[in-house]
Amino acid sequence: MTADNRVYLFDTTLRDGAQTQGVDFSVADKTAIAIELDRIGIDYIEGGWPGANPTDDRFFAAPPAFNRARFVAFGMTRRAGRSAANDPGLNAILSTQARTVCMVGKTWDFHVDVALELGRTEYIDMIADSVAVARTRVDEVMFDAEHFFDGYKANRDYAMTCLREALRAGARWLVLCDTNGGTLPHDIERIVGEVCAEIPGTSIGIHCHNDTENAVANSLAAVRVGARQVQGTINGLGERCGNANMIALIPSLMLKMGYDTGIPAENLAKLTHLSRLLDDRLNLVPNRSAAYVGSRAFAHKGGLHVSAVEKDPRTYEHIDPAVVGNERIIVVSDQAGRSNVMARFRQIGLEIDPRSPDVMRLLEIVKEREANGYAYDGADASFELLARRELHTVPDYFVLQSFRVLAERRWNARGELITLSEATVKLDVAKHRVMEVGEGNGPVNALDSALRKALLPHYAELVDMRLIDFKVRILDSAGGTAAITRVMIESADGHGQRWTTIGVSPNIIDASYNALYDAITYKLFRDGATPAV
Amino acid sequence: MTADNRVYLFDTTLRDGAQTQGVDFSVADKTAIAIELDRIGIDYIEGGWPGANPTDDRFFAAPPAFNRARFVAFGMTRRAGRSAANDPGLNAILSTQARTVCMVGKTWDFHVDVALELGRTEYIDMIADSVAVARTRVDEVMFDAEHFFDGYKANRDYAMTCLREALRAGARWLVLCDTNGGTLPHDIERIVGEVCAEIPGTSIGIHCHNDTENAVANSLAAVRVGARQVQGTINGLGERCGNANMIALIPSLMLKMGYDTGIPAENLAKLTHLSRLLDDRLNLVPNRSAAYVGSRAFAHKGGLHVSAVEKDPRTYEHIDPAVVGNERIIVVSDQAGRSNVMARFRQIGLEIDPRSPDVMRLLEIVKEREANGYAYDGADASFELLARRELHTVPDYFVLQSFRVLAERRWNARGELITLSEATVKLDVAKHRVMEVGEGNGPVNALDSALRKALLPHYAELVDMRLIDFKVRILDSAGGTAAITRVMIESADGHGQRWTTIGVSPNIIDASYNALYDAITYKLFRDGATPAV
Repeated sequence: MTADNRVYLFDTTLRDGAQTQGVDFSVADKTAIAIELDRIGIDYIEGGWPGANPTDDRFFAAPPAFNRARFVAFGMTRRAGRSAANDPGLNAILSTQARTVCMVGKTWDFHVDVALELGRTEYIDMIADSVAVARTRVDEVMFDAEHFFDGYKANRDYAMTCLREALRAGARWLVLCDTNGGTLPHDIERIVGEVCAEIPGTSIGIHCHNDTENAVANSLAAVRVGARQVQGTINGLGERCGNANMIALIPSLMLKMGYDTGIPAENLAKLTHLSRLLDDRLNLVPNRSAAYVGSRAFAHKGGLHVSAVEKDPRTYEHIDPAVVGNERIIVVSDQAGRSNVMARFRQIGLEIDPRSPDVMRLLEIVKEREANGYAYDGADASFELLARRELHTVPDYFVLQSFRVLAERRWNARGELITLSEATVKLDVAKHRVMEVGEGNGPVNALDSALRKALLPHYAELVDMRLIDFKVRILDSAGGTAAITRVMIESADGHGQRWTTIGVSPNIIDASYNALYDAITYKLFRDGATPAV
Repeated sequence: MTADNRVYLFDTTLRDGAQTQGVDFSVADKTAIAIELDRIGIDYIEGGWPGANPTDDRFFAAPPAFNRARFVAFGMTRRAGRSAANDPGLNAILSTQARTVCMVGKTWDFHVDVALELGRTEYIDMIADSVAVARTRVDEVMFDAEHFFDGYKANRDYAMTCLREALRAGARWLVLCDTNGGTLPHDIERIVGEVCAEIPGTSIGIHCHNDTENAVANSLAAVRVGARQVQGTINGLGERCGNANMIALIPSLMLKMGYDTGIPAENLAKLTHLSRLLDDRLNLVPNRSAAYVGSRAFAHKGGLHVSAVEKDPRTYEHIDPAVVGNERIIVVSDQAGRSNVMARFRQIGLEIDPRSPDVMRLLEIVKEREANGYAYDGADASFELLARRELHTVPDYFVLQSFRVLAERRWNARGELITLSEATVKLDVAKHRVMEVGEGNGPVNALDSALRKALLPHYAELVDMRLIDFKVRILDSAGGTAAITRVMIESADGHGQRWTTIGVSPNIIDASYNALYDAITYKLFRDGATPAV
């Protein structure tokens, strides 16, 4: 049992979120996201379904170490006609490092009859057996009561019997799932209230889908009448219309309803970052209108709203955007822009007088560049270089004269169709004209290779520098392949430093070169390299 | 007064929706959208704010003729220090063809004190005067009680006095607005219930914003306790996080709560079209996860889900998608089973015996390819080609021998640094070896151009084909520029058909070529082109 106002958060981004059409997590994605979920203070992190696909198997074979979160494996109850102890599927979910297991079973008689084509009593035995065996193998078993709300409406007794049997067999949590997402808040509130009254003292969870755009409201309604675990996903990722959006739920629970979610108040400011991290990982365009964390969630158009907000932000803001790590955007106000730029200067350790004309000039440059497709939000190193160049404090470490990149698909000597990439660069360094050629399995890789070959004799600092991420986004995509391309490159060195740079051009090779150039310049500048030009 | 279950719909897409950052309606947009809103059966269509900007003035000067809807002008109460009869702003909204006027006034004492800096009694007089004058000039006056919920919590008496004075002056509707969007459903329900009890017999409306992702739930809660007008926008367009989404509200009100919205049941099937029309007009990418109308709102990805849906769609669909004009999608992916593949075959019109070894072989190929970076769930055309190729029913329309793509940055004759892309292709078509060269502002664009030049003389079908979207995802990004690249290309033709193809390779140019090849092949195959090889 839990303190009355403690609500446990259960994130299923990596499991139910992976059901989203078009979404495909790599093991590296899962690891990066799980680490952030643990950092912010989520109670339970469901990593996937061991045994269901190779990605989940690899992730469960080597999950990250969590500071605080419990790692959860999802899976089904045993199959019909097998003992739970000898069921391979069940064994797969009980044999990982996850000490908590979330086991799903249907609680709608219609599903048992029509989809599973099993006897109802037989199916309840399958639930009870599976939970009982799981209870002997892991620390904590949750029962995900699939289709609970449809089941409760259709056959209340059957749905409740499923819950009671799972509880009797040792389930620590009973999670009521609105699997098809069609239940409205007033029905959720009534049914969860009745369940809580009927089996008092039981830990009840809620799992909602957004098929009527009510997943968040449904989750809040369930908590108000007694549910103490909420399942959801970052940004509401999930099959069909998605799951309950954890990013919107958390601040409402904490700031407006006074619940303790286990997340320290100061970690709320990480929500905006967490939301954008997921989109970055999946190469999705962030929803600008997202509640609390969207880039325009606190944007004010000109006129009356702006003048009121300048008098007192509470006139048009339901919370202080900084509390969730977001920021106010006042489109027409230079003051707001100036303070953003000043805040970023402070972050990178640049001392500058706020009244200096340099500040306004840089602001104009940033605005113009962002209008042309740059996004300095995610490219701190390029922003710092831009700012320092405006203040004339960044040397040119080399001067590119030209490059040429060739990608060729042809038949090789063994009759195989191969594609080769080769790049030549011509640049001036240490008073010499240097030409080098490199190859790679893609044009950008080849260009990177040629640049290093040309520069390494003059800049030993580059020896341990490597590219660790490379992202491409097409802007103004209505233009097809003629669109503007934005490339972001993340680099790292042997000291554990990481930095991100950006390049924008109609030509993807050109954009990549610009980002590579900034990446190399930033490394040399931070290491205090002596310009060899 | 209205029948107890009649809920009036008030669309403010063209007024509050126009506050969205980045949204800019033309007069033609407004006309087209208003006509559709009238056709579907919306009661009130708010066209804008006459006198506030040139677009709204032109739209109100020549609005479309409505069959059924009432046309509404929005505006503010008179200014301080002027008589209502002589206020130019008020006159502007009372002088149009709109016979209904929606007049906004603040009902939060804090706003009157801090933002307006007016006396509270003085401001109430402004509301009452303005409503009274309007009542003499138009048929129907609504009072939009701005910031009502914040106002009610802060100073209940003041907020209620504003309502009573507007009512006494002749307002036909009192619309309670959650202007800052921060109120949660349980508070909306309590407060609207109290207002309805306190001034019984009054027509109450609700106007919600989505700042906590609860605008739809808030609107439904208000209706349940007595509100009989709902204000919202198509797709939830609107400032910050948007307004209540009419597209999600309507089917819940009609199908799940039994209200009469004035929309004939058969017109519900126009909702998906209405939603996409707005996005098309504004050049926005439709939200695939939108409740009821999103392209993946009825998409099924998991193998178990698909087999159940094939037995009875109610197992995983909360409503029949056809009722709202949407459709079921069966997704093929590495999470899919045999039943997904079979269902997709049926959708593309392929007759195949489910026990045929071809089915399992294709499933194995899909799984293997997805493990290597392919993602067929977003690339229907490439999946269809893959399946048909396995069944040997897709001809080769041409055979590529080789291509070469060059991207070069150099100084041009005028001393400018430029980047050029050029591609050559060598291919066999119609028993001839063809070589062509094309250029473009990026290597993929150049390659596309060369391919078309080579093929168009032989395949006139390609004349109206164009690339409309180009997406790049780097997989296994821990490898930096050496990572695997996935390219997805969306193409369209002059018949309004759209299709998506995929290419995967360590080399981005190679991946792009593969996706281009599928795009061209799919177009020729669907059009029944005669292979000219």
